[in-house]
Amino acid sequence: RYGEVEDEDAVGVVTGLAWTEVGGELLTIEGIMMPGKGKMTVTGNLRDVMKESISAAASYVRSRTLDFGVEPPMFERRDIHVHVPEGATPKDGPSAGIAMATAIVSVITGIPVRRDIAMTGEVTLRGRVLPIGGLKEKLLAALRGGIKKVLIPEENAKDLVELPKSVKNGLEIVPVSRMEQVLEHALVRRPEPIEWDERAVASAPKPSTSDEDQPGFVAH
Amino acid sequence: RYGEVEDEDAVGVVTGLAWTEVGGELLTIEGIMMPGKGKMTVTGNLRDVMKESISAAASYVRSRTLDFGVEPPMFERRDIHVHVPEGATPKDGPSAGIAMATAIVSVITGIPVRRDIAMTGEVTLRGRVLPIGGLKEKLLAALRGGIKKVLIPEENAKDLVELPKSVKNGLEIVPVSRMEQVLEHALVRRPEPIEWDERAVASAPKPSTSDEDQPGFVAH
Amino acid sequence: RYGEVEDEDAVGVVTGLAWTEVGGELLTIEGIMMPGKGKMTVTGNLRDVMKESISAAASYVRSRTLDFGVEPPMFERRDIHVHVPEGATPKDGPSAGIAMATAIVSVITGIPVRRDIAMTGEVTLRGRVLPIGGLKEKLLAALRGGIKKVLIPEENAKDLVELPKSVKNGLEIVPVSRMEQVLEHALVRRPEPIEWDERAVASAPKPSTSDEDQPGFVAH
Amino acid sequence: RYGEVEDEDAVGVVTGLAWTEVGGELLTIEGIMMPGKGKMTVTGNLRDVMKESISAAASYVRSRTLDFGVEPPMFERRDIHVHVPEGATPKDGPSAGIAMATAIVSVITGIPVRRDIAMTGEVTLRGRVLPIGGLKEKLLAALRGGIKKVLIPEENAKDLVELPKSVKNGLEIVPVSRMEQVLEHALVRRPEPIEWDERAVASAPKPSTSDEDQPGFVAH
Amino acid sequence: RYGEVEDEDAVGVVTGLAWTEVGGELLTIEGIMMPGKGKMTVTGNLRDVMKESISAAASYVRSRTLDFGVEPPMFERRDIHVHVPEGATPKDGPSAGIAMATAIVSVITGIPVRRDIAMTGEVTLRGRVLPIGGLKEKLLAALRGGIKKVLIPEENAKDLVELPKSVKNGLEIVPVSRMEQVLEHALVRRPEPIEWDERAVASAPKPSTSDEDQPGFVAH
Amino acid sequence: RYGEVEDEDAVGVVTGLAWTEVGGELLTIEGIMMPGKGKMTVTGNLRDVMKESISAAASYVRSRTLDFGVEPPMFERRDIHVHVPEGATPKDGPSAGIAMATAIVSVITGIPVRRDIAMTGEVTLRGRVLPIGGLKEKLLAALRGGIKKVLIPEENAKDLVELPKSVKNGLEIVPVSRMEQVLEHALVRRPEPIEWDERAVASAPKPSTSDEDQPGFVAH
Ligand SMILES: [Ca+2]
Ligand SMILES: [Ca+2]
Ligand SMILES: [Ca+2]
Ligand SMILES: [Ca+2]
Ligand SMILES: [Ca+2]
Ligand SMILES: [Ca+2]
Ligand SMILES: [Ca+2]
Ligand SMILES: [Ca+2]
Ligand SMILES: [Ca+2]
Ligand SMILES: [Ca+2]
Ligand SMILES: [Ca+2]
Ligand SMILES: [Ca+2]
Repeated sequence: RYGEVEDEDAVGVVTGLAWTEVGGELLTIEGIMMPGKGKMTVTGNLRDVMKESISAAASYVRSRTLDFGVEPPMFERRDIHVHVPEGATPKDGPSAGIAMATAIVSVITGIPVRRDIAMTGEVTLRGRVLPIGGLKEKLLAALRGGIKKVLIPEENAKDLVELPKSVKNGLEIVPVSRMEQVLEHALVRRPEPIEWDERAVASAPKPSTSDEDQPGFVAH
Repeated sequence: RYGEVEDEDAVGVVTGLAWTEVGGELLTIEGIMMPGKGKMTVTGNLRDVMKESISAAASYVRSRTLDFGVEPPMFERRDIHVHVPEGATPKDGPSAGIAMATAIVSVITGIPVRRDIAMTGEVTLRGRVLPIGGLKEKLLAALRGGIKKVLIPEENAKDLVELPKSVKNGLEIVPVSRMEQVLEHALVRRPEPIEWDERAVASAPKPSTSDEDQPGFVAH
Repeated sequence: RYGEVEDEDAVGVVTGLAWTEVGGELLTIEGIMMPGKGKMTVTGNLRDVMKESISAAASYVRSRTLDFGVEPPMFERRDIHVHVPEGATPKDGPSAGIAMATAIVSVITGIPVRRDIAMTGEVTLRGRVLPIGGLKEKLLAALRGGIKKVLIPEENAKDLVELPKSVKNGLEIVPVSRMEQVLEHALVRRPEPIEWDERAVASAPKPSTSDEDQPGFVAH
Repeated sequence: RYGEVEDEDAVGVVTGLAWTEVGGELLTIEGIMMPGKGKMTVTGNLRDVMKESISAAASYVRSRTLDFGVEPPMFERRDIHVHVPEGATPKDGPSAGIAMATAIVSVITGIPVRRDIAMTGEVTLRGRVLPIGGLKEKLLAALRGGIKKVLIPEENAKDLVELPKSVKNGLEIVPVSRMEQVLEHALVRRPEPIEWDERAVASAPKPSTSDEDQPGFVAH
Repeated sequence: RYGEVEDEDAVGVVTGLAWTEVGGELLTIEGIMMPGKGKMTVTGNLRDVMKESISAAASYVRSRTLDFGVEPPMFERRDIHVHVPEGATPKDGPSAGIAMATAIVSVITGIPVRRDIAMTGEVTLRGRVLPIGGLKEKLLAALRGGIKKVLIPEENAKDLVELPKSVKNGLEIVPVSRMEQVLEHALVRRPEPIEWDERAVASAPKPSTSDEDQPGFVAH
Repeated sequence: RYGEVEDEDAVGVVTGLAWTEVGGELLTIEGIMMPGKGKMTVTGNLRDVMKESISAAASYVRSRTLDFGVEPPMFERRDIHVHVPEGATPKDGPSAGIAMATAIVSVITGIPVRRDIAMTGEVTLRGRVLPIGGLKEKLLAALRGGIKKVLIPEENAKDLVELPKSVKNGLEIVPVSRMEQVLEHALVRRPEPIEWDERAVASAPKPSTSDEDQPGFVAH
């Protein structure tokens, strides 16, 4: 059921937390990658600030692809689409930033995201996690939706004292200040960094055999 | 007659269901493919949310082309146009998503869509089917238009209890939760998955003989 | 005189029928083709719905170029411009669709359009003709302008009973349901279909002699 | 002085006639060509309808370049800029169409425009001249500005009876219905048509010597 | 200090004159050139008419590059940026045209602009100088700012009679009607025209030695 | 904590100073560089004037890359993203110009920015520093945030007399008039200028060994 925890760990699917006038709710963020030419598409009735937070999340990821085991030229041969269902509801604000970044790391590495985790936090280009609003409503929505663990910005940790006991008992709440921590909690396994020298590549002959460990496009 | 069931099974033509203040109605969705450079055009007086649902439907299809028996480079040599007649009426909302995805799968595979089926449901990038509004009005329109079978989102199945007997007797109503189910009901035959290795292709010599099974551009 | 029948059969010139608050009138639609890179330009103070109907008309034509005796790569070396004089009057609506499609088929085949014919009807991507409004006013304008034959959508044929005798006697009125019928009436001769295999072309050597039957760019 | 007849016959400079609430006035239209990549720029505080009339004028010219002695590939190596001083005044309407077309023919052929001529008329893609409004005010402005000859649309010839004698005596007024007539009056000499076969060109070796008669880019 | 005369003759820096409700003021116009692909950027909180006057100025320059000693292909390997500080103030109108053209000639030739000169005038594509408004306020601002010489449009010369003696004594006021005159006064030395044959260049081998007199990109 | 001094000197991170109705505050500006094609992205809920100030800052840097030890072709192989967290707050005005320029110089050279410095000032294309508003509020924010040294425009130095003693004692305030001064204070070390001849490069063979001193893309 939409608005509840996912049925299985999946690549590119992250649960964010939204805050509206009528309370908090789960926000599924979906990313996919396909053969293409480096285009990024974002949909889901998103307003400008949320669109920009996807842009910042994508640049954070692209500036560190080697940390995630991905060679930069891969981006020129793939398109990425980030979508936030349900299309009938407008969505805005920067607080889904870390969820967006997690979705993008998941699709480029092929590493699934743990299904029982949710997260909220603005992300910066360097992967810093900035504070958000509506913490209480968001955590209540997470509890209702069957989430087990929630990542929140470290600067919001001080707001936890005002929360009802039921929320603090029912959820594992983890304050985080950097994307490295977010990814460690959210991905089912840790990406393996690689080294890469763009100048060596340019002058070397193209190998004619496939490197099966390299992230690529495969049927699924 | 427009607004009634089609005369024959056709490639790229899908019957969706719309819901306006004055009731439900059939919505013909037309897709065609032509030689081109990978451009997607959408027309028919569509508002932003419906345009985005076509974008999501297209990415769902492009991320799984191998499941549909189509090699990714085909997309770079074709343009696709999705049109929703009648141009005088504005159209919006995400609920034609699964019909859009079906139309696109039909045009890239060349497999016709069954003419006596209609469908409604938002689609996500992973091919999940999300619930929609106006179920009753949509089903009444399907009945009026001579439709035999209607695909609806599984999460809307609970709303069927409120429906008049005449509707439930006159239509085969099939709840679906994934695009795989939608396609199984809607296409006249099942697409055959293929395997494809982009790196092998890049280094192999181009074959000089035509592969007649490969989806291509032919006169019709 | 503008608003009256043309002086001679011409390539790319089609008479449509418009309907405004002050009555019906003839609408000259002009298409030309020139050496270029596949760009389509539309002008004439056109609103969005009329622009989209040109887009649908163009895709209908491009998806069937072989039926019209034209090889698809021709589109990459030509620009097409569709213009609706008079620039001072805004124009909207989908009902010029079949006239647009006829103008485009005429320019790519070089086959002139009969000067004493007018037409009205929305076109779909598959070449279906959908009904329009203002039939009576449009037919009166055709009569006034010296038109001999008018093509109307088959679904509007039922509206003919309300028409004055003078109109029915003065005009040959032909209901049509598909573009094939429209073209048969409107073009001075029938296009000759060709066959074409894009893969064979890609691997074959380019011929150094001109194929004089191939649509090309010539002085006129 | 701006608003009066030019000092000498010049390439790309045409005098149009505008009509505003405060009367008619001369409108200088300037075109230039420069080395480039086929870009067309239009400036001068122009509203949409006037911009579109430049687009139509340009396509008229591009579809007949051979009639003007110019080979089509020239357009891919040149940019054209059409400007209507004075930037502080907004300008609109289709009636400068034939002046725009004349300016563009002049720049691509290098043939100067007669300085003592003015013109008004909408142009179509086929070079037809359509009627305009404000004839009397425009002719008075031409007289005041020292113009000797004015080209007007043939369909406006009937409006000449209402004009004061002084205007009819002071100006040579020439009704025209096609661009061929406009160019014959406006250019100081007639362009020489050429023949050109795009397919022969594609397979022939590029000549290493300059063809001095070919329109090209030279210092001035 | 901003709003006063520059400290030294500099490449690409020209002092224009603006006129607002609160009086006249100096307007510094800055142009720079950098390695690139032929892109033109304009910034400084500029409204549409001022942006278009930069476009016209640029085309005037590009259509005469040989007069300025610059070969056309240089434009394809450089980007030009014209900026009007101060970003907090919106700026509009065509009267900075000749200052824009001067700035662009200065950057492409590398010839500095005299620091003690200011100028006002609309520019046309052919380099004509058109009259402007606010002459008195602009000249007062020039005097206050330490300017020695001001170039004004010839058609504004008649307005000089109404000016206070102090202004006429304190400033050398030079009426100009063409850009050639503007450049003669404004640049510290005269550009040297060159000849250039684009067809010869295309077939000749690329020289492997640098031509030190050719405008290029060097550190500064 | 956001709004306070950074924890360490970092590449591409600069502290600007903003001024709103509710007082001054620290504004973190983040720049990153990634493999790409020369695209510049700016995000952070920025209004037009702030976007243009980033454009001017970027052109200042690109026109002097050799001064910073960077060869121009590097820009064609990298994308740069400048982001100003926090996305929920709109930001405008030109006063972050010198901070933007500093961030860009830092990312292209890889030289970190001193963490205990803040700055405010509009930048011009030539690297001039123009005066700003809200000096007092900005300096108070710097003091509160733990900043040690603040760079201000020389033309604002006269406003320092009105400042409370606490501010003048608690901060080292440095008036600057050119970007060279800004960079000398802000970067942890001075960039090393290089020489570069674009024509020599074009004709020379590409070296097959990496030049380890050349700015490139490495894992971090
Ligand atoms: Ca879910
Ligand atoms: Ca929905
Ligand atoms: Ca139908
Ligand atoms: Ca209709
Ligand atoms: Ca006519
Ligand atoms: Ca008209
Ligand atoms: Ca004049
Ligand atoms: Ca003016
Ligand atoms: Ca200054
Ligand atoms: Ca300022
Ligand atoms: Ca911070
Ligand atoms: Ca925030």
